[in-house]
Order: sequence, then structure tokens, then C-alpha cells
Amino acid sequence: MREFELIRRFFDRGPARKAVLGIGDDCALVDAGEATLAVSTDMLVEGRHFFADMDPASLGHKALAVNLSDLAAMGAEPLGFTLAMALPRADQAWLQAFSQGLFALADRSGCELVGGDTTQGPLNLSLTVFGRLPRGVALRRDGAQPGDDLWVSGELGGAAHAVRRRYAAMAAAQGLDGRTLAGPDGGVSAQALRTGFPADVPALALARLERPEPRLALGMALRHLASSAIDLSDGLLGDLGHLCERSRCGAQLRVERVPLCPGLEGLDARERLSLALTGGDDYELCFTAAPENRPRIRRIGQELGLALTVVGQIDAGDRISLVDEDDRPVAFEGRAHEHFA
Amino acid sequence: MREFELIRRFFDRGPARKAVLGIGDDCALVDAGEATLAVSTDMLVEGRHFFADMDPASLGHKALAVNLSDLAAMGAEPLGFTLAMALPRADQAWLQAFSQGLFALADRSGCELVGGDTTQGPLNLSLTVFGRLPRGVALRRDGAQPGDDLWVSGELGGAAHAVRRRYAAMAAAQGLDGRTLAGPDGGVSAQALRTGFPADVPALALARLERPEPRLALGMALRHLASSAIDLSDGLLGDLGHLCERSRCGAQLRVERVPLCPGLEGLDARERLSLALTGGDDYELCFTAAPENRPRIRRIGQELGLALTVVGQIDAGDRISLVDEDDRPVAFEGRAHEHFA
Repeated sequence: MREFELIRRFFDRGPARKAVLGIGDDCALVDAGEATLAVSTDMLVEGRHFFADMDPASLGHKALAVNLSDLAAMGAEPLGFTLAMALPRADQAWLQAFSQGLFALADRSGCELVGGDTTQGPLNLSLTVFGRLPRGVALRRDGAQPGDDLWVSGELGGAAHAVRRRYAAMAAAQGLDGRTLAGPDGGVSAQALRTGFPADVPALALARLERPEPRLALGMALRHLASSAIDLSDGLLGDLGHLCERSRCGAQLRVERVPLCPGLEGLDARERLSLALTGGDDYELCFTAAPENRPRIRRIGQELGLALTVVGQIDAGDRISLVDEDDRPVAFEGRAHEHFA
Repeated sequence: MREFELIRRFFDRGPARKAVLGIGDDCALVDAGEATLAVSTDMLVEGRHFFADMDPASLGHKALAVNLSDLAAMGAEPLGFTLAMALPRADQAWLQAFSQGLFALADRSGCELVGGDTTQGPLNLSLTVFGRLPRGVALRRDGAQPGDDLWVSGELGGAAHAVRRRYAAMAAAQGLDGRTLAGPDGGVSAQALRTGFPADVPALALARLERPEPRLALGMALRHLASSAIDLSDGLLGDLGHLCERSRCGAQLRVERVPLCPGLEGLDARERLSLALTGGDDYELCFTAAPENRPRIRRIGQELGLALTVVGQIDAGDRISLVDEDDRPVAFEGRAHEHFA
């Protein structure tokens, strides 16, 4: 493990700034003040959550971004994070790029690395982030009310488009049916994962997959405006389902209003709908708010330079209904609504 | 990933007790009050930090115990932890035993599971614990002063004895030199790891390896008495070296006073010394305190039913000197003192 002295070179950044005591003792110490703490953890495994050939700087960014996205969805202010890594070997160039991508996002998010652990093993990145919230203002999943507007930030579907195009190209090269390669959770061979993205994947879609932007400023700005929020990691339909289930309500989703990632215009309508509703990895926020908060929320979007779109309403039902602009049901994979348990 | 519904069965324990909001939202929420937060993370990989045949209940205990030991070494009160796991498969019997061992320790330590992530992959357990401390009372590594007593809790060497005996038996079975199999970090084949412990390993030594007891009550009791503390994960000489380095001081270690795990009496003197000084995995506390605090510290030991032993003194030097009861240097692997950088 001597080689892991390398780790120190790339991850030891001198005295702590936010922490009272940083890396080097049994624990880091962080002054939480008189606050509520928001904590979340995510583990990323090669071949499952990211392609084996992913640029390490992008991987460093994304590993932190998906965790920060959870803080954003609570409206929390980032404080710090821990990073536990299993690495097959100590590759200096890899570590340099990974740490650069990681710290670039950490620094501009005000989220300090306060602890870590490194071991040899199959590549595994396990991060825990924690943030601070004034008491009682968290954007929980269970606060949506019938009559609330349903909002999403940014544009959806880009990340999923890049993943699907890559799986389809891999499948075609192997004479397989693309649908049997369902996504990063599908257990595809390591060899297939190294074939790269097809050249026709829009750069913007690839950027959405590899460099998602956690919506931290939006989350904090929504503290007293949104009634509930969730981040979009698994796809709008699934994540909205979680929100409705926890809030014990239903939703009417106006599918034509769902903002799509530019660059997907050339796709047919069915594919676009599928990406918009079930494409994951967007890390945008889905949130609800009383209609009287619309002007203030629109102003936040303008100040942040971020599209914020009303895509439907919360209702008192127990399902998500997909409708068009004339309130007619829209069929999606044979269904016009999505039940949840 | 449907099979990972199983996870919920073993890890969802209903409404949060300590947390304001437990598992099920984007983040857990924990009320930290007006406090300093202590945070630590450890990643355990099969074949490296534990033998592949380890009883899963013991593994659940140990995965949390080694993290809680870091809180103990800061004097922190446990609040909660996150658990990220990669599992090769969802094995119901394994999960049931693992979660039982984990939660038995979590419950009696007042440390609540507040977040988690599960994915498929080579077995990897990544925990982050956090605890609470009044401001300014943390037992840091950098507070030792010349003239302080040097203390250790419990008895040392049992865990390392069990590991060394197993490696020696594995090496003998394969006709190898036992010294080439240096410990769980040595990269031994999976097959060799499954040969089990030899029958002559004392049960107490095995218990110290597989069921270490984090010294949380001791750490909290030492808050205003100890000048510094560290937990013993890598062996007394190495961990004391970290403490001295951070405190910019040296230490005189009276090797005959180092308390040894019962059951090691039959070993020769050189082996006992090696286990006492470099055997890892003990998870006892090593701490320093002014001599006038001796009576109060002894009383704490009596109240906790835990051996607390003065094993030397801190001095103004830059090395750890090994001495006998007559202050004569004691040779250890050719050296009578251990320099640190």
C-alpha cells in the first residue's frame, strides 16, 4: 500500500477551511452551528454506474455531483463530504484527473473533503455528503398538496439519450437486440463497455450524462417557496411517483410541456416521450409549489439562468395521469397513467 | 435489481428515532443542535479487510465497530451512520445475519442508520459515521504534552495473533513461508482465505478480531481529562507514532507494561512483543493525560469494567523509545526506538 502515498499528493489540500479539523485525525470536526444536518450517500461502481472508459475528470465531477444533487433536493447548503475509494491500482494520471474534476466542483459548491479511506480493490467510489439547513425548512418529498404546480428545472432526456445510443451501437456491433442492454444496470461485458459513444451522440447530451450540474442554488432559493422536491436520477415518471407516494397525492403531467434537452429534436415522438418520462441521470429538480408562488419562482429561474417549467399539477388522486394540452390522455407504452403502490 | 427489494426488508426499521427524517427522502435530516460534528468513513473490502468466510453477523458488527472506534477516539457521542454496500448477490440469509450484527451494535451505541445505497458488485462495505461533541472538547491527536502519562485501554495483540496464526497455517498448508503472507493487506488467493482459523487460536483472540468493542463510553468520559487520543487500528507503535508526530513530541514506552490479551501467555517473548507493539485490529484507545488525572482515570476504568493501563510517558523528544522497568533500552526487530518523519 506504499503506492497509496500517491493518494495524499492528490487529496491532501492543507489546512481545512470549513472544517474545524480536517483530514488527519480519527474524525473530521465540522461546526454545524445550531442547524439541522442533511446527509446522503451514494456508491458508484464501474460498469454499473459509469462506463469503464469514462474520462476520470468527468468521473470525479459526477461522483460528487450526484451526491450534491441530493443536498440540492433538500434545499441544503453543502458543508463537506467523505470519499471512500477502492482502486485496482494507484495510477497517477488517473488520480490527478479524478481529483481535479472532483475538487473543481467541490470548490465552487463550498463542499469540503473532510475524510477519506483508500484501499485496493475493484473500482468503487463511495461518497457521503452533508449539508446544513435552518430548522424546519427542508424540501421534503412528503409536502406536495393538491392544487400545487408541478415544476422541473432544466431540460430532460439528454443523459439517457447518450446512454441509449451507446447501448444500441454496442448491441448492433454484437448482433444483439438493443433492448436487452437496458442501461448501466444491465450487466454488459467490460469489453462492450469500452467501445465508446457513437459519433452521432450530441455533445450536449454527453455533457448532461458526464457533467451533470447539481442544482444547489435552486434548492436553497426554493426553501420557503416549494412544498416538496426530489432530484431526478431515475427518470421523471419514477421519481415523481416517489414524491406523490410520500405526499399521498396524485399528479397530472402535461407531457408536451416537459422540457427536452436540445439536440433531441430529430428523434421521433415516441422516443422523445420515452426519454422525457423515463430517462434517468438528469439530476434536475422536480418540485411542487402553490400557484401563487409562480412569479417568484420564475424570477429565481431568471436570476440563475436556469429554465424552470410548470409541467403539470398535483391532484388528490393516487396516480400520475399523462395528458396533452386538451386534457386528453396520452398513451405511453400502452398506459395513460402510472399507478404507484 | 428487483431482488434488492430484499434490502428494504432487512434495513428499513420504520420511523427514525434520532433523525428528524430517516431513510426514504433525498437526504436524512439530523438535528445537530448547537454542536460540533465528528465525521469518519471506512471502506471494507473482502479478502483485504476481512476473510471471505467471516460470519456475516460478525462482519456487520465489525464494519460499524471500526467506524465507531473513530468516534470514540474523538470523545464523540454517536448520532448516526450511512451504509453503502456493493453485494455480489442478494443472499437473504447473509443479509439477515449481517443486519442483525450491525443493528445490535448500532442500537446499543445509539447510532442510527440514516441513509444507504445498495448496488451489485464485488463485496464492499462503506460506512460513514457522525457524532456530536460540545465545542472545544474533542480528543484530538495533537494535544499530548511532555510529562503526560501514556495510557492504553483493554489488552492488545489478540486480534493480530488470530490473523497471524491463520496465515501461518495457510502458508504451511501451501508449503510457503508464512512471512510472505503479511496480513489481510497481503493479497492472498481467495482459496487460501477460505481455509479457516486453526483450531489452536484462542477463542478470546478470535473474538477480539471479529467482535472488537468500540470504546465509546471511555472516549466520552475522557473529554476533559485526556490531552490527546487515537484508536489502535494499525498497532500501538504505528498509531502512537501518528499521535507523537501530530503532537510534536516523543514517548517512552515501557514495553513490559503493555497489557496483553489473555491467551497469549504461551507465546515466546519475542512474539508477544511483536503482537503488543505492531499487532493491529485491536480498536482499543491510546491516550495521554496529565499525571494528576490518574485517580479520576482509574475510577473511570473501574466504572466501565475496562482495564486502563499507564504504559509510559510523553517526552519532548522526536522518537518512541522502548524501555524496560529499569529504563534500559529494549531491542525490537533490531531497534530500541522508532523514529517518525
